[in-house]
Amino acid sequence: MSPNATRADDHRAVVRKELLDSVLQRYEATTDARLREIMEAAVRHLHAFASEVGLTRDEWFAGIQFLTATGQKCDDVRQEFILLSDTLGVSTLVESITYEAAEGATENTVLGPFHVPGSRDLAAGESIVIGDDPGQPVLIRGTVTDPDGAPVADAVLDVWQTSSTGFYAVQQPDEQDPQNCRGLFRTDASGAYEFRTVRPADYPIPGDGPVGSLLAACGRGLMRAGHTHVMVSAPGFKTLITHVFDADSAHLHDDAVFGVRESLVRDFNSGVVTFDIVLSPSDGPSEGPS
Amino acid sequence: MSPNATRADDHRAVVRKELLDSVLQRYEATTDARLREIMEAAVRHLHAFASEVGLTRDEWFAGIQFLTATGQKCDDVRQEFILLSDTLGVSTLVESITYEAAEGATENTVLGPFHVPGSRDLAAGESIVIGDDPGQPVLIRGTVTDPDGAPVADAVLDVWQTSSTGFYAVQQPDEQDPQNCRGLFRTDASGAYEFRTVRPADYPIPGDGPVGSLLAACGRGLMRAGHTHVMVSAPGFKTLITHVFDADSAHLHDDAVFGVRESLVRDFNSGVVTFDIVLSPSDGPSEGPS
Repeated sequence: MSPNATRADDHRAVVRKELLDSVLQRYEATTDARLREIMEAAVRHLHAFASEVGLTRDEWFAGIQFLTATGQKCDDVRQEFILLSDTLGVSTLVESITYEAAEGATENTVLGPFHVPGSRDLAAGESIVIGDDPGQPVLIRGTVTDPDGAPVADAVLDVWQTSSTGFYAVQQPDEQDPQNCRGLFRTDASGAYEFRTVRPADYPIPGDGPVGSLLAACGRGLMRAGHTHVMVSAPGFKTLITHVFDADSAHLHDDAVFGVRESLVRDFNSGVVTFDIVLSPSDGPSEGPS
Repeated sequence: MSPNATRADDHRAVVRKELLDSVLQRYEATTDARLREIMEAAVRHLHAFASEVGLTRDEWFAGIQFLTATGQKCDDVRQEFILLSDTLGVSTLVESITYEAAEGATENTVLGPFHVPGSRDLAAGESIVIGDDPGQPVLIRGTVTDPDGAPVADAVLDVWQTSSTGFYAVQQPDEQDPQNCRGLFRTDASGAYEFRTVRPADYPIPGDGPVGSLLAACGRGLMRAGHTHVMVSAPGFKTLITHVFDADSAHLHDDAVFGVRESLVRDFNSGVVTFDIVLSPSDGPSEGPS
């Protein structure tokens, strides 16, 4: 590199550092200390990202257009920015930050966009399936305990999954009963629970928006590994949001939203799945979804 | 810190590293090498940002809502994501990356959202003001040269600014002639140019959207320092996008979009402003706005 080129590079680095400092300085008047911390970190990482890749005007404008289209794809039943966050692994990361599990506790994963409050109460052993479903019948059962193995009685399990078609009831208001493949169960005095369902199907995340286009441009797939959602709450424990995954799924290793944890994978072939759950004691307010 | 807490922290760091690695791995199939480079850097910085600040589910959801609202504020005449980029200093950074000036060349700054192609050709010394404007008359003049001081004849200067009310013609279709306060000038054989105008006013960026709300929450202002835009193009040189700023502006030090460069500030009080311009030789295609 010529001395002139080096001098020009040095000059550019100085200019960029001065710019970053002047932007950061503008946040000194932020009265909310947490907002200030978040904005300063966001500014530092945005600038570092642009400098690192040498982002050009045309490239940044393409990025602006992508972000704009992502916002404009959102409506009452579609949240394209959450989908973007999911497919970048950011949702999983934020969940791992938010849910601080005790040692030995069951791993958590993403909530996903298909949880609907207000499922019906069902008795132990009942099926969450309404009507006929050609899928393989499955019994999911286990215990809910604390990290020392003591049973947690009367814990509420909110479970939901796709029918064997790969769609949630909320996605098919004309084809499925709105309460299909979802229900609330409670553990007994020994901490035991069980419910019947059908084997959950692999399914694609919505691919008809900007996020789907970006995934396609990156050679990435849309599929999620088949899973049953389980959200477990009990007084004195952090609310656990997790999945149990089908070990036979073809998408355990490329789940589009990075939800799979090895410890959450079970063999569904026998039709009986044992999924024992260990809750983390709460040391503050419950960490349920908000 | 207890040994347990340390072990839990170590475990969390491992989990986060594994997550990041698995997200990055998904971009290995991206056929466009530049897209892959940009996506990998974006993922790394997003994850580092979230981990660094310990971003919680509620905070990230507030961020998702902000980004969604920003996209939804955009329409044909309003680009809220560009405004966000401007107010975070990212637009200025990207311009500094895109426009690599030769040593001694005039500094560039942001294009801004108010440039309209198709201004009328005016003769040297003519005024860009149409009709009466109560503002202070100003003559702006100078030379256009290469870095060695050789005059650049027939360079085109595309100039635009607010009227003394602080609004661009494009913002006031009912109040201003669409060609008011804008025009095209050419340098003569000695590289000289001159045009008449009124002193540009300080003015606020649009504050009625999510970006305005965020700036308010951070105690930041909306004002830009008064300036005249100048875009200079000539065969064999990179197109220069810059401003000349009024030294008397009250917002040189808190210009909302970080556009001010000390080398671009001039004294407007005498009514005559000398703004000599040094262009960078192009070593490739012209770097004009796209």
